Amino acid sequence: MQEARKVTERYEQISYGVADRVATITLDRPEARNGYTRQMADEITDALRTADADHAVRVVVLTGAGQDFCVGADLSAGSGKEQGFTQKVDEDTARQVADGTYQEPAGLVTRVLYAMNKPVVAAVRGAAVGVGSTMLLPVDYRLAAHGTKFGFPFTRRGIVPEGASAWFLPRLVGLAKALDWLISGRIVPAEEALDAGLVHSLHESDDVLDAAYALARGLADQTAPVSVAVTRQLVYRMAWAESPEAVHRLDSRLVFDTVRGADAREGVKSFFERRTPQFPGRLPEDLPEYLPWREGTA
Amino acid sequence: MQEARKVTERYEQISYGVADRVATITLDRPEARNGYTRQMADEITDALRTADADHAVRVVVLTGAGQDFCVGADLSAGSGKEQGFTQKVDEDTARQVADGTYQEPAGLVTRVLYAMNKPVVAAVRGAAVGVGSTMLLPVDYRLAAHGTKFGFPFTRRGIVPEGASAWFLPRLVGLAKALDWLISGRIVPAEEALDAGLVHSLHESDDVLDAAYALARGLADQTAPVSVAVTRQLVYRMAWAESPEAVHRLDSRLVFDTVRGADAREGVKSFFERRTPQFPGRLPEDLPEYLPWREGTA
Amino acid sequence: MQEARKVTERYEQISYGVADRVATITLDRPEARNGYTRQMADEITDALRTADADHAVRVVVLTGAGQDFCVGADLSAGSGKEQGFTQKVDEDTARQVADGTYQEPAGLVTRVLYAMNKPVVAAVRGAAVGVGSTMLLPVDYRLAAHGTKFGFPFTRRGIVPEGASAWFLPRLVGLAKALDWLISGRIVPAEEALDAGLVHSLHESDDVLDAAYALARGLADQTAPVSVAVTRQLVYRMAWAESPEAVHRLDSRLVFDTVRGADAREGVKSFFERRTPQFPGRLPEDLPEYLPWREGTA
Repeated sequence: MQEARKVTERYEQISYGVADRVATITLDRPEARNGYTRQMADEITDALRTADADHAVRVVVLTGAGQDFCVGADLSAGSGKEQGFTQKVDEDTARQVADGTYQEPAGLVTRVLYAMNKPVVAAVRGAAVGVGSTMLLPVDYRLAAHGTKFGFPFTRRGIVPEGASAWFLPRLVGLAKALDWLISGRIVPAEEALDAGLVHSLHESDDVLDAAYALARGLADQTAPVSVAVTRQLVYRMAWAESPEAVHRLDSRLVFDTVRGADAREGVKSFFERRTPQFPGRLPEDLPEYLPWREGTA
Repeated sequence: MQEARKVTERYEQISYGVADRVATITLDRPEARNGYTRQMADEITDALRTADADHAVRVVVLTGAGQDFCVGADLSAGSGKEQGFTQKVDEDTARQVADGTYQEPAGLVTRVLYAMNKPVVAAVRGAAVGVGSTMLLPVDYRLAAHGTKFGFPFTRRGIVPEGASAWFLPRLVGLAKALDWLISGRIVPAEEALDAGLVHSLHESDDVLDAAYALARGLADQTAPVSVAVTRQLVYRMAWAESPEAVHRLDSRLVFDTVRGADAREGVKSFFERRTPQFPGRLPEDLPEYLPWREGTA
Repeated sequence: MQEARKVTERYEQISYGVADRVATITLDRPEARNGYTRQMADEITDALRTADADHAVRVVVLTGAGQDFCVGADLSAGSGKEQGFTQKVDEDTARQVADGTYQEPAGLVTRVLYAMNKPVVAAVRGAAVGVGSTMLLPVDYRLAAHGTKFGFPFTRRGIVPEGASAWFLPRLVGLAKALDWLISGRIVPAEEALDAGLVHSLHESDDVLDAAYALARGLADQTAPVSVAVTRQLVYRMAWAESPEAVHRLDSRLVFDTVRGADAREGVKSFFERRTPQFPGRLPEDLPEYLPWREGTA
C-alpha cells in the first residue's frame, strides 16, 4: 500500500495526500465509523477541488479509515455545524430553503464529484450505508471488499433518497434494482452490487485499496488527462439527451480539434513506438473553451 | 397463502381483497387464460385507485387466477365493450382519436400503475404475453414462477408495442435486450428475464404468490408509506432529467422537511430501540404539497 | 453460409449483396484489417440507404472480410480522401467546422444506422476497435466470435469518443461499464461484452456469420416490416422522454391504426392458422404519415 504524502494539515475529519499522481481522500473518523457530518462534507469537497486543480494529480482515490467506509449521517451529532441533520436551522439555511437554493449535505459531495475533471476510484469495505452509498454513485469506479454492505435505508428512517441518488442509481443498476433498493431500504450485499453493475470488482478486505491504486496508476499511465476529462463529462452531461444528434454535433467538433492536437500526436506516436505515452495536455488549461458545461456547476 | 378478505362484489373479471395491509388484485378469467378486455382494464384501474386511497392498504399484489397470468388481449371478444380490440369504433373513440386524446386499452393500466403512491408486487406464472407483459413493466417487483413465458409479440401480429412499453423496457433491461424482445416478438423465458433484470426472483409455481406476500409484508413492516410514495415517484418522474441538479434541488427540500417530520423521529427512535417502526404518516394526506407531479396524471 | 448475390460493382472498400431477403454489407479491406476510411464511410452509408429502400431486403447483416471486423480508423491513410483523419482540411470541411455542421467520419455511419427502418445484425470477430466498436452501437444485434476484442481507445490516443458513442453506450451497458470502457480505453473481451449486454450471443469464429443469417431470416419470416420499423424507431427516438405519457400518446394512435390494418389481419389470421405470416405492408410506403421523426434525419 502506498504511503500518501500528507500535503495538508487543514482537515480534521478526513486525511488527504498525494503520491505518484494519485490523490487519496480518506474519511477519517474511524471511532465513529466515519459517520458523515456537515464538516466532513465541506472537507471532502475542498479536497476534491484541490485534487482537481493540482497538476501533480491524475486520479483520486476515495476510501475510509478503519473497518467501514461510512455508516451514513452521524445521527449523534448535535452541534451547530451539523445542523443539516438536526432540528436547528440557522438564518442562512432558512433563507436557502425559502428561495429554493438549499442543498442537503449529502448532495454537496455528489455535485462536486459529478463535476470533476479527473476520475475517482472508490475503495470500500464494511458499511457503506446511507450517504455512505449515495456519495459513491458519482464516482467512476467502486471497488469493494467481500462483505461490504451497501444500503439506501431512507424509507426505513421516514425520509427520502438524498444526493440525487434517484438520478444516478437507475443509470447504474437499471430501473428494477433501483426501485427495489430505494423502496425497500434493505442492505445490499457486495455480491449483489457486483452483479447489478454498481461494483466494478470484489477483493479481499486487505487488498481493496491496493487494487484501487493499481487501477488508478493504470489510468494515469495510459490515458490523456484532457481526453479523460472530456470523456467523463460527455457521458455525465450529454448521454441523457433525447437524441444522439446533439452528442454527435459536439463530439464532431471535439474529434476535429483533438485529432489535430498535441495529445493525439503523442498518442499515435507512442502507439507505433510501443511505449507509454507522455501526454502534454494539462487540466484545466487545455480543456476546449466551447464545452457547454464549462461555465457550469460544481 | 393468505385468505384475501373480499371487499367488493362489484367486479366481474377481476377479484379484489385486502388482508394484513396488502390488497390483492387477481385477474379472474381463468377460463380465458385471463385474456385482457376493456372491461378488465377498467376494473383493474378502479381497484388500483381503491387500493391507493385505502388507509388499510400499504402494498398491492397483482396476480392471475389459474395457470397463467394473462395471455394478452382477448382476440375472441367482439362485443361493444371490447371495441378497443375490434373494428367497431363508437363516437367517443372516434372523437378521441381525432383530437389526440385516445388511450389504447393496455396503457390505461400502465398509467395508473405509474402514478401509484403504493408499491405493487406482481406474482406471475404461465403465460404473461402481450399486455400480460406490458402491464407488468410499471410495477415495482415482478416475482415469477419457473416456466413463466413473457413476450412482446406485437411485430408478429402486425401491430406495435402498446402501453408505453417502448419507454419502460429499455430502462428495465437495457437498450439491447429491449430492442431484441420488441423487434423479434419472441417468447422470453423466465430465466432470461431474471438475468436481464425484468424479474426480481424465481420461485416454484405454487410458491410465487406466497413469496409476493412475504415481500409485500416486509415492505409494510419496515418502511414509511409517505417515504415510499415520494421515493417511487422521484425515480419514475425525475430520474430521466438530463442533469442530476434538478433532482437534487427537489430532494434537498424533501430531505429538509422529512428529516424534521414525525416519520423521521419514529424511524430514528425505532432504529435505536431495535424495534419495528410505527410510522404515523398517511397517504395521500401527508404527501408534501409541492411535489411537481402531484397535480399530475393517473 | 449464403452466397450473397452481388448487386453492385460500385463499391471499392466494401462489398454488398442481397439474398433471401437479407442484404449483406461486408467491410472489404482485409489487407488493412478493414481499417476505416472516409471512402468506406461513404460506401457503407450508401449501401445502408440502398438496403433500406429495397423491397427485396428485410434485414441487413453487417460484417467484415478476413479475420477482423475493423481495427479502427486507418491511421496510415494520408490521401485527400481520408482527410478526416489527417491534418489536411479542405474548404468544405473548414466551412462546416466554422458553422457547426461538421460531422466526424465515424458518426456518418452511426446516424444512418440509427435512422434505418430495417433491423441490422452485426457478425464480428477479431478486432472491433475504435470506430470498429462505435459503429456497432446503433445496430440491433451484435453477434460475436469468441476472442473478439472490442475497445474504445480514444483516451489512449489523446482524442475523444466519436460517433455519439457517449449517448449509445450507457444505454446498452449501463453507466458504470460505459464510464469504465470509455475512460480507460482498455480492450473489452467478448465475454465481458456479453455479460454487460453489448453482445447478443457468442459463437465459434466460423459460425458467427451463419448465426447472424439464421437470426436475420427468423426476423424476416416472423415479423411485419412496418411493425418492426415503427418499433425500432419508437425505442430509439421516444424511449428517452422524461415521461411515458408522450410515448403512450403516440403508441395509442399507432395501435388504433395498426390493429385495423392489413398486417394485423394477417398477423391474427396466420396465428390462428398456425402458419408463417405473409405481411402485405411495405417500407417505407406504408409507414404512418404522422410519425414525428419521419421528416427527420439520417
